[in-house]
This record gives sequence, structure tokens and C-alpha cells, in this order.
Amino acid sequence: MAVDWGTVMVKLGLSGLDTSDHASVVSINIFVTLICACIVIGHLLEENRWMNESITSLIIGLCTGIVLRLATRGNNSRVMVFSEDLFFIYVLPPIIFNAGFQVKKKQFFRNFITIMLFGAVGTLISFIIISIGAVEIFRKMDIGALEIGDYLAIGAIFSATDSVCTLQVLNQDETPLLYSLVFGEGVVNDATSVVLFNAIQKFDLVHMDVTVVLKFVANFFYLFSTSTLLGALGGLLSAYIIKKLYFGRHSTDREVALMILMAYLSYMLAELLDLSGILTVFFCGIVMSHYTWHNVTESSRITTKHAFATLSFIAEVFLFLYVGMDALDIEKWQFVSNSPGKSVGLSSILLGLVLIGRAAFVFPLSFISNLSKRSQNDKITFKQQVIIWWAGLMRGAVSIALAYNQFTRSGHTHQRGNAFMITSTITVVLFSTMVFGLMTKPLIYFLLPPSMKHLTRSLSLSSEPSSPKSFLSPLLGNGQGSELETGHSIPRPTSLRMLLMTPSRSVHHYWRKFDDAFMRPMFGGRGFVPFVPGSPIERSVLEWE
Amino acid sequence: MAVDWGTVMVKLGLSGLDTSDHASVVSINIFVTLICACIVIGHLLEENRWMNESITSLIIGLCTGIVLRLATRGNNSRVMVFSEDLFFIYVLPPIIFNAGFQVKKKQFFRNFITIMLFGAVGTLISFIIISIGAVEIFRKMDIGALEIGDYLAIGAIFSATDSVCTLQVLNQDETPLLYSLVFGEGVVNDATSVVLFNAIQKFDLVHMDVTVVLKFVANFFYLFSTSTLLGALGGLLSAYIIKKLYFGRHSTDREVALMILMAYLSYMLAELLDLSGILTVFFCGIVMSHYTWHNVTESSRITTKHAFATLSFIAEVFLFLYVGMDALDIEKWQFVSNSPGKSVGLSSILLGLVLIGRAAFVFPLSFISNLSKRSQNDKITFKQQVIIWWAGLMRGAVSIALAYNQFTRSGHTHQRGNAFMITSTITVVLFSTMVFGLMTKPLIYFLLPPSMKHLTRSLSLSSEPSSPKSFLSPLLGNGQGSELETGHSIPRPTSLRMLLMTPSRSVHHYWRKFDDAFMRPMFGGRGFVPFVPGSPIERSVLEWE
Repeated sequence: MAVDWGTVMVKLGLSGLDTSDHASVVSINIFVTLICACIVIGHLLEENRWMNESITSLIIGLCTGIVLRLATRGNNSRVMVFSEDLFFIYVLPPIIFNAGFQVKKKQFFRNFITIMLFGAVGTLISFIIISIGAVEIFRKMDIGALEIGDYLAIGAIFSATDSVCTLQVLNQDETPLLYSLVFGEGVVNDATSVVLFNAIQKFDLVHMDVTVVLKFVANFFYLFSTSTLLGALGGLLSAYIIKKLYFGRHSTDREVALMILMAYLSYMLAELLDLSGILTVFFCGIVMSHYTWHNVTESSRITTKHAFATLSFIAEVFLFLYVGMDALDIEKWQFVSNSPGKSVGLSSILLGLVLIGRAAFVFPLSFISNLSKRSQNDKITFKQQVIIWWAGLMRGAVSIALAYNQFTRSGHTHQRGNAFMITSTITVVLFSTMVFGLMTKPLIYFLLPPSMKHLTRSLSLSSEPSSPKSFLSPLLGNGQGSELETGHSIPRPTSLRMLLMTPSRSVHHYWRKFDDAFMRPMFGGRGFVPFVPGSPIERSVLEWE
Repeated sequence: MAVDWGTVMVKLGLSGLDTSDHASVVSINIFVTLICACIVIGHLLEENRWMNESITSLIIGLCTGIVLRLATRGNNSRVMVFSEDLFFIYVLPPIIFNAGFQVKKKQFFRNFITIMLFGAVGTLISFIIISIGAVEIFRKMDIGALEIGDYLAIGAIFSATDSVCTLQVLNQDETPLLYSLVFGEGVVNDATSVVLFNAIQKFDLVHMDVTVVLKFVANFFYLFSTSTLLGALGGLLSAYIIKKLYFGRHSTDREVALMILMAYLSYMLAELLDLSGILTVFFCGIVMSHYTWHNVTESSRITTKHAFATLSFIAEVFLFLYVGMDALDIEKWQFVSNSPGKSVGLSSILLGLVLIGRAAFVFPLSFISNLSKRSQNDKITFKQQVIIWWAGLMRGAVSIALAYNQFTRSGHTHQRGNAFMITSTITVVLFSTMVFGLMTKPLIYFLLPPSMKHLTRSLSLSSEPSSPKSFLSPLLGNGQGSELETGHSIPRPTSLRMLLMTPSRSVHHYWRKFDDAFMRPMFGGRGFVPFVPGSPIERSVLEWE
């Protein structure tokens, strides 16, 4: 534990023996004011056919960058520096945790295999295509020295999608299948690309042979499973502590504080152990919403649900603002300003590779996924496939963070090739978020017209059995859903055939049995805490699951 | 705006182009784990007669400091460095804002004049006594060169109380008068000592004459009024925006985010304008709970109430942990280790001055305050005076932050006198929090036995008119309270006599009229938003106001 605490504290902004710095106060004021402006303007533009909050924030960030640059008369080369630490330590955890916490678990696990297909296998396909394309094309262009590790990193960087724009347009209630696929793929994709990226940096890829590839694959699966396990353990521990000590007896604040801190701890612990914090905190969120959330008081439930969403919302707005403001950092544009044509060409090629790399897995994998589904309703239609393809075209902050990590490391910040890659990443992120992002709303309205969506909504509302009875007899209620679907709609198959034909649904069925018999009595969860009927929480539970 | 953004970003922890630092991840893990431990242990010890959360955190912090020091084999002189920036920018705002947000406004404003007497005049008296005592005694001891500004700073540093320990024991419902006095004094005291301290640093106090003193007083009142006004404006702006745009229509998260951000913005804006952020954010909290809170959706109300309390709770636990861990920084103990007797003597003298300085205003000012009260119930009994005196004996993080600011500034960090003052401050803070803090619970139980407190509680519960009717006809309900008390219990006096005899209550009466006629229609507030009877919010409103 021979840690240099002085440096640590400076890094975390915990240091500063001098008097309170005026400049830091100024920058916080600017940021908070801008976030408020983004929220208000985003709210006003909500009805707008084209805009959404991400694009609003990005544009406001860009404008502020321009204003700040003019105000400092251009001689301040670093208006705002994008920081990986800030991104991975403070901004990403609340977004991913909230994603896990708010996900409709039933939908998510029902489509688990399809989601993993898109998120893990799809990202790998996209990674391979972009890497090969980069090696083939970039080597012919004179853009400076890039090693094999750099090309693979480019593949990982441009495989990390940002589906926030699309998720803001899709509605979880109106198109549950589509939403859960896009949403689930987004999270698994983030985790896959970060794990891939870390593996690329760790392994010696110049001397590549079968052993290295096998080790690489083993490492990938090790990271995937241990990260998931750590997240689940973190969530279960919080559920156990709160259930055992019955916190609610005295204070809602302690419960909420403990949930926030345990979730954050699971993320940081994963980072400490060199696992994937993203996967960890995502599964921690899922476990917390399944167990811990039911063990706390009613006020805690409402508070956590909205507080986590708010934190995530602020983090997202901050992120897009930040990316926008960072884009205008002059220093990194100096190297490429001599050859603007080459820079534009590079970005166009990358955009093309992104489009192809994504198409190369969305349509084939959808076809494979459809093969295993018998019901027409469960299949992914072509229109939906197009939306899934489109939803993952945007590149965001993960790409920028990874690009900075790869191309600005010690020593070779000022190399030509690195400068080109940084500026191209920013160009791709800005272009894809603004141009593709702006077209998302119209595209979805065109492919899934609102009238049809409303029809779907009313149908799904009337067909959903939402009787409050299930809350008074939760054990019955919990079994009910899967029983109804596996038992009534089709002739009940044998267990083995069922496992082969509809694996995820059957796994879900056995999981429910196990959950009710062993997990819930230990860790709480719905039905294992007193429930007050008629309270507003009932409504929110109904909406949620 | 020629701001060095590079430095700013480092200060805020926003920088770090190198790869994610392992050490910072370690320190975050340690901190989050410790905070979780404090919450759980604090919960388990809640029934304990002696302990409370502050002392638990302080002890855990001290133990961790020892463990870390042993683990790094003592050669790491800076285990943890107390940072003013961290304290004033991140930790203090949520604590003070929540104080304003959760305060029972009726009680606070009814006792407004007494609170201002204690908080402003009392702190000034304490400041003068401690300063004069320090000048007289310390000059005779050989502790190194201290200027007149240093002695005055000592007065301000040791006038800043920390009443968190006492507030954790007192119950707002059982002893409303006592609670509002201790609580209100604590906030006004914090603000007064910080304003005093800033004024001391700003003015040239070596050449003191009448003009300087007058300017000093004028500056003090200017800061007080403008800070309060800024806070009120911030709160009103948030109320107006949310009411005008009717955020609830779409999203709870936006409302909650906007409330958090506007509150923080008001604090940072005050700091930017060199005003007192503490006063600003406190009054912003009061205004927000009076207007904004009523304009948002029901879920937002529950969420904000608990989320703000949780943030404040985490900040408090973190603070005591941090102070505990910082106390063992070896470097600052090296200078005084040669003369331990002198160090102990210095700390004892300061503790004595604190005891005397506080007694010198609590008992006289209580006497003056009692003169203006006719009802026996409104008078402050001697036992209550003792509790008020005791509640303000603890010194906390504000003292440490101010001491660091004064005695570790550029150049003379290694002077003997400065080292003595830093270690004495830490000694006084630890001793007063641990020893006085441990005695608080027994003392209050001794002076106000629980049986009596329960009696008071049941009485107050039955005498409070808590009919839900007041929510359906809020205008009537709002007037009701003050009408009942000023009108029925005593013969109605003329307006002028009323203003002279019971100034605060009468001001309150006119304020209510003004509020109903002009403010509420503009900024919302109770009764100016749709209200659903029978919802849990009704209960929480009843408990709150």
C-alpha cells in the first residue's frame, strides 16, 4: 500500500493547500449554468421532431467552446481537456448503474441470448471488420507510424456505440422488444469494447500466435464472468445488510446512502481488480432492483428510483456538454490543419467502416435469432432490424475516452498518426451524433408511425394482466407470468426439448423456482417485506416490471 | 476570463491525460468502504447511550489513519491532507442546503430574532473574547511570531461551532423551540464566522482606526444581506421556471436535477461574487422548500426530500472520517513534538476561552430574549440555556478549514507559530467532538428526561391542529396558524403595539399576507398546484411544517 497520497489527492481534486481557487469556482459556475440551460432548453424542445437532449447538450457545448475560445482570444489552447479519469470514475458509473436499475428485467432476461448475440458477438464482428479495414486502407495512406496494436485499438474504439439518442426516442412500453434489444446491446457493447480494449493493451500483439489468441479469448471470458459475479455479489450484500439490520426502522437516508455507496463501491472494486466496472455496476443495478429495492421503505423506493435516474440524467447531459466543449481544443487540430483533405478522408473511411461493420452483424444475427423463435411476435421484423442497425451507428464518449487512452499516452502525444486518430475520432463522434442523431426521430416515426405505436400500446395495455392481486400473493404472482406464457399459448414440451427450443425462457423458469426457494428468503425481494396496498408504489411497481 | 484551464482542471480532478490512476482508485475504494462501515456501525450503535454517528466516523477515521500510517511504515508523511477546496466546494454545500430545506420554517421564523441574536451577536461576542484572550495570553508564551491579523483569525476560527452532534440527539418534534434555536444558531454562526474571517483577511488591520472598524461593520452587513438576497432569488427563479414550464408534465428527473443544480449554482455564484455561500444556499433551501417543492410532482417531492437528506448525511459522515484521518498527518506534529507541554497548554487555554466565550453570550442573550416574551412557554429555561451553551462547544471542520487557510498560506507553512496553531486547532476539534460530544447524549437525557420529553410530545401532538382540511383550502389553512395564536390566546393589541411587543410574530403575519397576495400566485407554493388528498405526501407535509 505504498501509495503516493499527495498525488492521489491532487488527482481527485482533494488537495490544494492554497486558498480556494477563483478559477475553479468560475469553471464550476459555467458548467452548472450550462447544465441547467440544457435541461430547460431540452424540455422546451421536447416536442420538436428533430431534437433530443443529447444533441442539444452537444450543440450548447460546442457554442460555449467557441465563445470561450473567442473570449480567451484563441491563445488559450486548452479550453477544456477531456479526462478519462473523470469520465470513467465519476460520469459513467451512474449512467450504467441506472441502466441496470431501471431495466425491465423480465424483457431483458427473456431476450438475454439475443442481446448477448448482438452485444458480444456482434461487437466482435464489428471490431474485426473495422480493424481489418483500418489495416488495409490506412497503411496505404501516409498518416504516420501506427503499430498493429493501434489498428486493433481503432477497431475497439469504433465498436463502442452510444445508443442514448435512440433510447430517448424509443418507448419502453410501446416497443418493449425493440427497446430491450437496443438497450441491452448498448450496455453489453460498452462492456465488450472496454474489455476488448484493455485486453489489446495488455497483450503483446506483435508476436501473435494461437496461444496468444486463446489466452486473449480466455481472458475475455474471465473478465466477463468475474465482473458479472462481482456485481451480483455487491447487490446481494446490500440486500442482505438492509434486510438483516432492517434499516427502515429508523431512517430512509441510511438506506438510500447505503444503496448508492454499495453500487459505487462495486464499480470501483471492479476497477481496482482490473475487471470491467461497467458490467459489474450494471448487474449490481439489476440485483439491487430485484432484491434490495424491495427491502427498503416506501419512501426509499420512490427516492432511489428517481434519484438514480436524476444522477444518470445529469451525468449524460454533462457528458455531451463536455464532449462538445472538448471538441474545439485547438492543439490537436494544429497537426492535421496542414492536410485537411486527408483528415476528412480518414473520418469518412471510419464512418464507412462503422456503417458496414454494424450492418455485417445486425442482419445476419437477427436472422439467426429469428430462427429460434416460433411465434411471429417474437421475431425481429426487417423494419426493427433497420432501427437496431441505426441505433448503434452513433459513437460517443466511450470512443473518445478510449481514443485518448490509446493515442495520447506518454511520449508520443505529438506524433502525426496519433493526432490524426484523435481528430478523426472527434469528427466521427460529432458527425454521427449530430447528423445520424438528428435523423433518428424522423426515421423511427417513418418506420414505426406513432398511430401504429399507439395501437400497439393500447393492445399491450389491455392484454397485460395487471391485477393488483399479484401483489397480495406475490409468490403466485411471480410464477404466474412465465406459467401463462409457456403453458397456455403452446403445448407444453418436455423439459429437454424446452431447454433446446426456448432456452432463455426455460432458464428464466428454473431461475424463478430457485429464486423463490432460496434467494428471496435470504435476500428479500418482492413479497418478503410488508406491502401496503393502495399506495403509489403499487403503481410504480406495475409500471416497472 | 483569462483562466488557466489546465490548472483548474487539475484542481477539480478533471484532468489527467495519463491512464486511469491506480492509486486514486485505491483511495476511493477505501473512502467508500469506510463510509459504508460508518453507516452500518452508526446504525448498530444508535441505541447506545453515548455514541452518535459523528463520533463513530471520527473514531473510524482516526483508526484508519493509524492503520494507513503503519501500513506505509510511517515514512509517508501525508496520509491524508485536509483540503479546503474539497470542503467548501463539495462537502459543505449539501449539508447547509439540506439544513435550509428541512428546517421547520414556522419555528425558525418565529424565533428569528433570538436566532440572529445568538448566531450573529453571540458569535461576535465570542470572537471578541477569544481574540482578546489570545492576544493577552499567547503574547506571554514563546510560540513564535503572530500578527494582529492572526489573533483576530484565531477568534474567528474558534467561534465557528459544530452543532451536528447535538442536533442528532435533539428531536425537532419533542423540543421544537430548543431545536430551532440550536439549529438556527449553528447555521447563522457558520456564516458569521466565515464572513468575519474573510473580512479579517481582506482588511488592513495593523493600522486600525474608526474608519476601518466602520467599513468592517458595513462590509459585514453588506455580505449578510446580499448573500441572503442571492439565495432567495435563486430559490424563486427555480420555483418560477418549474411552475412556468410545468416540468412535471413529462419528467420527475428534470425537476429534481434542476432543483439540485440551481441550489448548487446559487452557492457557487455566491462564492464567485465573494459573498457567503453558506448563507446563500441556506436561504435558497428555505425558499425552495416554501415554493419550488410545492410546484413539482409528488414523486419529486418525496425524492428531493430524501435525496437532499441523504446527500447531506453522506457529506457529514465523510467529513468526520476525513477530519479523523487528517489528524494524524505527521508533518505538522514534528514542529511541536519538541515542546509537548506548551502544545497541551495552548490547547487547554483555547478550550477554556471557547467555554468562557460561549457562556459570555448564551446566558446574557437568553435573559434579553426572555424579556421580550410574555408567555412562560416561549421563554428559554435555565436548563435549555445550559443545553444551548453545551451544543455550541464542539468545534468542527469549519474551524479546521479556516485554520488551514490562515496558517498554511504561502511561505510561512513551516513557522513555529503556525505549526502550533494548526496542531492546537486539531487538538481542540478532536477533544471537543469526542469528549464533549460523548457527554451530549447523557447530558440532554439528564436535563430533559425522556419521560418528560414524551409528555411534551404527546401534548404538542394533541394541541396541533392537523386537520387535512387545511390542504383542501390552503389559503385558509395558511392564515389559520398565526390567527389562532395571535388572536385567541391574548387580547388583540393594536398593530403598533403588536409590532413592538412581538416583532417576529407580527412580521410573520404580514409576510403571510404578502405571500398569499403576491408571491404564491407568481411562484407557486402550497395550494397553487393540484393536490391529491390521501396520498402519502399529505403525511409528509404534515410532519414537515
